[in-house]
Amino acid sequence: MQTIRVETPSAKYDVLAGSGLIQTLAPRIERIAGRLPRRVFVITSGPIWALWGEAFQASFPDSPIVLFLEPGEKYKSLASVEKLLREMARAGGDRGSLLIAFGGGIVGDVGGFLAGIYMRGIAYIQVPTTFLAQVDSSVGGKTGVNLPEGKNLVGCFNHPLGVLADIAVLGTLPKRELRAGLMESIKAGIIRDRALVRFLEENADAILARDPNALEKVISASIRIKAGVVNRDERENGLRMILNLGHTVGHALEQATGYKLLLHGEAVGWGMIAALSIARKRGAITAGQFERLENLVHMYGPLPPLQLKAKKVVAAAGSDKKNVGGVKRFVLPIGIGDAGVIEDLTPPELEAAVSYMLAQAAERPAK
Amino acid sequence: MQTIRVETPSAKYDVLAGSGLIQTLAPRIERIAGRLPRRVFVITSGPIWALWGEAFQASFPDSPIVLFLEPGEKYKSLASVEKLLREMARAGGDRGSLLIAFGGGIVGDVGGFLAGIYMRGIAYIQVPTTFLAQVDSSVGGKTGVNLPEGKNLVGCFNHPLGVLADIAVLGTLPKRELRAGLMESIKAGIIRDRALVRFLEENADAILARDPNALEKVISASIRIKAGVVNRDERENGLRMILNLGHTVGHALEQATGYKLLLHGEAVGWGMIAALSIARKRGAITAGQFERLENLVHMYGPLPPLQLKAKKVVAAAGSDKKNVGGVKRFVLPIGIGDAGVIEDLTPPELEAAVSYMLAQAAERPAK
Repeated sequence: MQTIRVETPSAKYDVLAGSGLIQTLAPRIERIAGRLPRRVFVITSGPIWALWGEAFQASFPDSPIVLFLEPGEKYKSLASVEKLLREMARAGGDRGSLLIAFGGGIVGDVGGFLAGIYMRGIAYIQVPTTFLAQVDSSVGGKTGVNLPEGKNLVGCFNHPLGVLADIAVLGTLPKRELRAGLMESIKAGIIRDRALVRFLEENADAILARDPNALEKVISASIRIKAGVVNRDERENGLRMILNLGHTVGHALEQATGYKLLLHGEAVGWGMIAALSIARKRGAITAGQFERLENLVHMYGPLPPLQLKAKKVVAAAGSDKKNVGGVKRFVLPIGIGDAGVIEDLTPPELEAAVSYMLAQAAERPAK
Repeated sequence: MQTIRVETPSAKYDVLAGSGLIQTLAPRIERIAGRLPRRVFVITSGPIWALWGEAFQASFPDSPIVLFLEPGEKYKSLASVEKLLREMARAGGDRGSLLIAFGGGIVGDVGGFLAGIYMRGIAYIQVPTTFLAQVDSSVGGKTGVNLPEGKNLVGCFNHPLGVLADIAVLGTLPKRELRAGLMESIKAGIIRDRALVRFLEENADAILARDPNALEKVISASIRIKAGVVNRDERENGLRMILNLGHTVGHALEQATGYKLLLHGEAVGWGMIAALSIARKRGAITAGQFERLENLVHMYGPLPPLQLKAKKVVAAAGSDKKNVGGVKRFVLPIGIGDAGVIEDLTPPELEAAVSYMLAQAAERPAK
């Protein structure tokens, strides 16, 4: 079991990563919150609850009230939020109630937002069930939903009382999701932790076979990196931007493919290939480092093939809310274990990098 | 012009009260925010904008983008919030945008909530246009909307960068709304400011005739009281409860009359009559103080007549989210200028006070 401390100006809490947390939730929550609240709500998805609901409930003297969110990005909406808020009100939720978000990234984002706005804020706890949610979205306090006009346009910064990442739950995660989630760990290693990069290179078989010790090591290292960055820049004014390595092109790929073809982690994987290409040309990484890191991304693939025009991807990147008026700011690795933000990316430079990545993506059929 | 400082753990800002603020908004915002943001949104209502839109826009080099909220409690909803968020997104609102809430309490509550959740929070400024919003709802950081299950069940604590209360705007406020709003000033005086009570007693004619100096004095004193309480208890854990004098019965009256018959301040006025009756019986105020304060409430009436059963009002009070399982906590004046919270109110005691108040309400036809 590993404990990672998050300490920002607005919140202090622990992230626990280890096996068997699900079965001991109630006493852990009692310790974190001081007492077990009279009314405990769980927001989850049907498939997760079918697999893990029984284990989840085992430690609670009274069964929590279960709120279901339909799986899928299209339910990450204000309509879902309204429906769930009304269910909470009808079930007698009050200011002393607690909400547990038990699921992947979407459940965590919606759950954190619900907790942030129900009766102007109630306490909540994250129990992430996907690799991606464990290493990334459950830590940092970003919550919210989409609008038809764009993703994550509505939400709030709202930290949980704690995050309990149970590695055993990853046993039922589809293999493709595990591989995609690992892209965020690769990213974390590249921007901040040379040792994690080496561990990922040397233990791919054990990690992909879900060896608990290997997973605990990767997950806790990834969380530690994210927490370290968030602790120093809660509101994404500066440093936190480096967490976006691979995300500028990644978001553009997700948008250009209608959010249907790629898992988020897969888009970030391809986005990192583009970023590595720019970094190599600018001399931020050596040819040897480039090769090593590119191999690492593909080691945790296969990334899905893409049939896209570079110009379309570049245009999509320029329409992102973070890149009004074209992409100029861009996160690049600096060697292995550090990263920085450039402010002068040029359109031809971006297009060349995207073309390099798309050439690979076209010839790499999914296994 | 009066300046009142709000300083809570999460925000520090000034409330300005005086005449002529509307005409000088842009330079004031520039001073408060450091610069005039590229995109300024205004949320307002049609009637307010028709009266004051031109004056509002006069000081802005580029016209702000106007978002309209239909007047009425039923538009204080998540549906309105979604519609307005989408309008902001389509108009290119980004994280550096500013929102100005220009209207009464509903516009302020919805506007503060919008600003709290658009892109996880953008800056906003309150420009309240009703007496009630100026002395009460614009200060304290409470924002939100209703659910069909109950009022203000959704929202967040979100302080503005500043509050600009222009007294000249009250010139177009319907007389009934002015009288109702003054009930919150009476409440503020009773719980915290003996001198304000005396000023309200001695200057009713000037205040109701909207003499600017008299209004500025009442408004700034009321804001100072609210700010003083909020500064010491931002999240309503203790002291802030005394601001609810008259509100337990007031909310019950609003609910029992379907939110149609009474303005909020009028309900609070009747609620204060009930609270005064309990306070007199408990000896928290003398018979002389009771008479004086009861007269003061009616001086700023007439409060609308009511045809209700006491039992129905008591039942409605017990169904409020703050009074789960029956009303036990209740705010009472202690003499004039202080207040406290009792924890042992009994149902017969509440019913007797409500009956006393309803007897008055039945025989007092609106002028």
